[in-house]
Amino acid sequence: MLFKKEHLDEIREYIKKDNLKGYLILTSDPHSSEYVSSYYLSFRNYFAPFSGSAAKLLITLDKAYLSTDGRYYIQASKELEGSGISLVKEGLESLEDDIILKNNINPIGTSFNLINEIDYERLTNKGIKLVDKDYSFLIKDRPSLSKEKVFKLDESLNTLSVKEKLEYIYKKLDEVKAKANLISSLDDIASILNIRGKDIPCNPVFYSYLYVSKDYGNHLFIDLDKIDFEISDINIHPYDDIFKFLEEHKDIPTLVDKNKVSTKVYSLINNKINGSNPSYLLKAIKLEKEVQNTKKIQALDGLALVKFHKYLHENLSKNLSELDYSNKLKEFRLSSPLCFDLSFNTIAAVGKNAALMHYSPTLEHSSIVNDKEIELLVDSGGQYYGGTTDTTRTFLIGTPSKEFIHDYTLTLKALIGVSSTIFLENSDGHTIDIRAREFMWKEGMDYKCGTGHGVGYILNVHEGPNGFRYYVSKDRDDQGKLVPGMITTIEPGVYKENKYGIRIENNLLCVPAFTTNDGKFYKFETITYVPIDTKCLDLTIMSDEEIKWLNDYHKLVNEKLTPLIDNQELKDYLDELTKEIHR
Amino acid sequence: MLFKKEHLDEIREYIKKDNLKGYLILTSDPHSSEYVSSYYLSFRNYFAPFSGSAAKLLITLDKAYLSTDGRYYIQASKELEGSGISLVKEGLESLEDDIILKNNINPIGTSFNLINEIDYERLTNKGIKLVDKDYSFLIKDRPSLSKEKVFKLDESLNTLSVKEKLEYIYKKLDEVKAKANLISSLDDIASILNIRGKDIPCNPVFYSYLYVSKDYGNHLFIDLDKIDFEISDINIHPYDDIFKFLEEHKDIPTLVDKNKVSTKVYSLINNKINGSNPSYLLKAIKLEKEVQNTKKIQALDGLALVKFHKYLHENLSKNLSELDYSNKLKEFRLSSPLCFDLSFNTIAAVGKNAALMHYSPTLEHSSIVNDKEIELLVDSGGQYYGGTTDTTRTFLIGTPSKEFIHDYTLTLKALIGVSSTIFLENSDGHTIDIRAREFMWKEGMDYKCGTGHGVGYILNVHEGPNGFRYYVSKDRDDQGKLVPGMITTIEPGVYKENKYGIRIENNLLCVPAFTTNDGKFYKFETITYVPIDTKCLDLTIMSDEEIKWLNDYHKLVNEKLTPLIDNQELKDYLDELTKEIHR
Repeated sequence: MLFKKEHLDEIREYIKKDNLKGYLILTSDPHSSEYVSSYYLSFRNYFAPFSGSAAKLLITLDKAYLSTDGRYYIQASKELEGSGISLVKEGLESLEDDIILKNNINPIGTSFNLINEIDYERLTNKGIKLVDKDYSFLIKDRPSLSKEKVFKLDESLNTLSVKEKLEYIYKKLDEVKAKANLISSLDDIASILNIRGKDIPCNPVFYSYLYVSKDYGNHLFIDLDKIDFEISDINIHPYDDIFKFLEEHKDIPTLVDKNKVSTKVYSLINNKINGSNPSYLLKAIKLEKEVQNTKKIQALDGLALVKFHKYLHENLSKNLSELDYSNKLKEFRLSSPLCFDLSFNTIAAVGKNAALMHYSPTLEHSSIVNDKEIELLVDSGGQYYGGTTDTTRTFLIGTPSKEFIHDYTLTLKALIGVSSTIFLENSDGHTIDIRAREFMWKEGMDYKCGTGHGVGYILNVHEGPNGFRYYVSKDRDDQGKLVPGMITTIEPGVYKENKYGIRIENNLLCVPAFTTNDGKFYKFETITYVPIDTKCLDLTIMSDEEIKWLNDYHKLVNEKLTPLIDNQELKDYLDELTKEIHR
Repeated sequence: MLFKKEHLDEIREYIKKDNLKGYLILTSDPHSSEYVSSYYLSFRNYFAPFSGSAAKLLITLDKAYLSTDGRYYIQASKELEGSGISLVKEGLESLEDDIILKNNINPIGTSFNLINEIDYERLTNKGIKLVDKDYSFLIKDRPSLSKEKVFKLDESLNTLSVKEKLEYIYKKLDEVKAKANLISSLDDIASILNIRGKDIPCNPVFYSYLYVSKDYGNHLFIDLDKIDFEISDINIHPYDDIFKFLEEHKDIPTLVDKNKVSTKVYSLINNKINGSNPSYLLKAIKLEKEVQNTKKIQALDGLALVKFHKYLHENLSKNLSELDYSNKLKEFRLSSPLCFDLSFNTIAAVGKNAALMHYSPTLEHSSIVNDKEIELLVDSGGQYYGGTTDTTRTFLIGTPSKEFIHDYTLTLKALIGVSSTIFLENSDGHTIDIRAREFMWKEGMDYKCGTGHGVGYILNVHEGPNGFRYYVSKDRDDQGKLVPGMITTIEPGVYKENKYGIRIENNLLCVPAFTTNDGKFYKFETITYVPIDTKCLDLTIMSDEEIKWLNDYHKLVNEKLTPLIDNQELKDYLDELTKEIHR
């Protein structure tokens, strides 16, 4: 199943035979999922040696290009070495404009079941002609689709019942004069049904389509082997029946979200009402039970990280590897009976590995962690019965340079900047992004990723619409207004190629601040409870307010974790990590 | 011509006769101008007693509503008293949603020559049926259209020739596969042709349409009495011929900007390519000569304001009125031979008048300026052969309260916040807005207007696309990326109803800061040279960097203005105003 250069020759025969100039393989599934199951991931992996989570692969008759974003520039250029595949750095260059259009690579084949409609339209509007071809049959030893059962969430875990969520959707459909809503995004479906699955690693979703209609019934399309219970108000059909069903219901005015549906499905609906699925915002706004449970499991997650911190410092002389530490952290997390998975592959990276924004250690590549390195950057999270976490800490393990101390302090200032912002209703992530980035920008630095993103509830670690970016990205429906109940993770950093990487990340809950004559003001409540390493801060560039913020935060962390600790040694360790600092 | 209640009865007869439920009068002309000539303004003024620059008037068979934005809430509620017309506060409520749709006022008449296409589509998409009716014939003693001649700008005033500008447009048209560009926005036309006019007070534009096409020729439609010279490469036609011309050229693929064209004109073009006019961005980016000239005339403007400052303090005991001071400032400005007009009606306001964001004193209403008031707020600007200015200073004239000192200091901090921002390419006003507003938001305050807007070059004082807002405003094409050469005016403030108003405003030129591996960074160069009153600052809430910024700024102001001053008394006064401050 692994990439071989010969695979490119195999696919080129079909490209030639079908009179195409190229073939485009996206990292995608039929549901526009960001992370996809191994079944779908194998399509790209069969034709390119790249382990990142996001890339497009274009194969022409004599060349091949893999395009990926700033998180993966360094990693991709390493992994693609010797493959004959050229790296296209999205953001600095563009696969579409600089490769396809410039070289007039037209027409191009791609699977209409695997491209979402918004991408399809963007490409065709640019004059790129796409032809529906599925060459995935070429993959040998393809992993099979998951047969894991889906499971109902306990009632204590959701504020709203399925019935209440459906009624919310009916109401929203009425407002846009739609009679039905075709939902293809897996996290939305899981959220509406208060059900979770195990089809995609770290993402507790299940492959399915959901059709919601007050007048025409609610219909779930899913591999029948995976579900062994009924859901009231929902008719259950085999997964593949969606196409026939849509064909039969194509004239019903149907709300459909171009960002979240394949071209294949989109084209089946005749009477389309374009718009965001009501479940998109509904899912993003966490209500009472979701917030309470999340805070509870965030404390469990914090405890795991404090144990990990202690373990790290006690074992530093043993020359364990990044992967060892990554496994140990997983063990600490899973020791809580509420934790059932990680929320993404743990990033545990020292030195220059940490400069690769999304590096994960593997069996083949895992560096030694010891005090010859300045830092161990750990970005990790858990899936709990009670919420999803996403936290980064940069642990000081060696002797920091002046430059490192400076950059670490800037990163913390950026986190504090956003965390302490008070903002007026109608603000979005674009409004607030600079409160983090200004510290880097002043010095000519920038981190090549968003400042933050929404976090799911027992769901995907990346969620919209509460994205934090400093520019407008058309076709991305992630610049929604911030409203109380949204959980955003904020993760500024400094990355210096071949030197080090620093990131500090907390999850922030949007809550009301106050209401005045001038409007409703909101603020953030930090709900990640993990000590922040204070040993390499340059207090001379921190304001009194920033130092106070850090001390207050550590007081909160101590209060949240103390009740969970039953041994004095760990309690002493926590106290030491969270003690007040002074200039 | 002035409003009388009877006028509403007159128009209602026609509403009834034409079987309409209401009639909508916008503050508009056929060119989507923000400020319109007295000829067009008279339409709204005949039916409503409101003197602000922006409002919509809806007249139904038994009611009438005037809707306006936050700048005018207080002013409008005063002026409408006793008129029988209800005020709709846009932002807090909506004429369309809360009045028209809620009361099912349908269909509504309006002039398709006076509504721009984007507004027309927004209304009709909401289900509001509009019928093309022009009832302006009802206006008695209507002012006539201007017959003022247009004039060519001296070559020293423009970096690019008309030919070069046309060629830029041809290139941009090629990129979007358009063969022609219909331009209706008056400032764009003036900018492309390096010509100015006198049709709208303070806005040196002339009523016209411009059709640009490499293949079909360039055609200017203008009242022939107003132009007495030829323009190479441009065919000149009578103004009203545009409709016949478009009819004859309707099948040519024509780029047209929905934001900037009337529904009447838009509907005449058959083969439309929707998009921003190339001249929109071209006009916003000031090149070498524009920047040099603007800096030169900004110093002249600064000198006028220093003279004004001195005059104000020397005459405070004389109980002169706001209007007296407004006239005096005009006199100081126009004493420069380069100044040929104001760029907008001067706002000169004490105390509670200053709390009305866009109050201007009139013969009927002008308060006394003396030391019983804390402040005189003056927002003003000039049209010069060399640029356009827009500056606000809040002059301390009485004894400030603690609250006033605090709010004045916040306002300055907000101005410094934006002025000292370093930002990465692709940033826009939305990215940076919070660098001003954060100081007010922290305390539950907000100013109900944008933080800033583009400023024209010997043109309209309001220009896009470099608007500064904290939220997304659909249908407004003013959130363009900031690029070097753009001039933005930044005007944060604090407004306390019935108490006082504070605003400090500078014009900022976007310039390159530095380029690093992480990208191109930009910053702002302040090009307004007017001392900022330092007598009511709370230095305990200002950072060292902020105090340094202010001292550096005053050093610059002193350097810029000193060469223009030939009397020692004024020089001493300037030195005093710009002397360093210390904690």
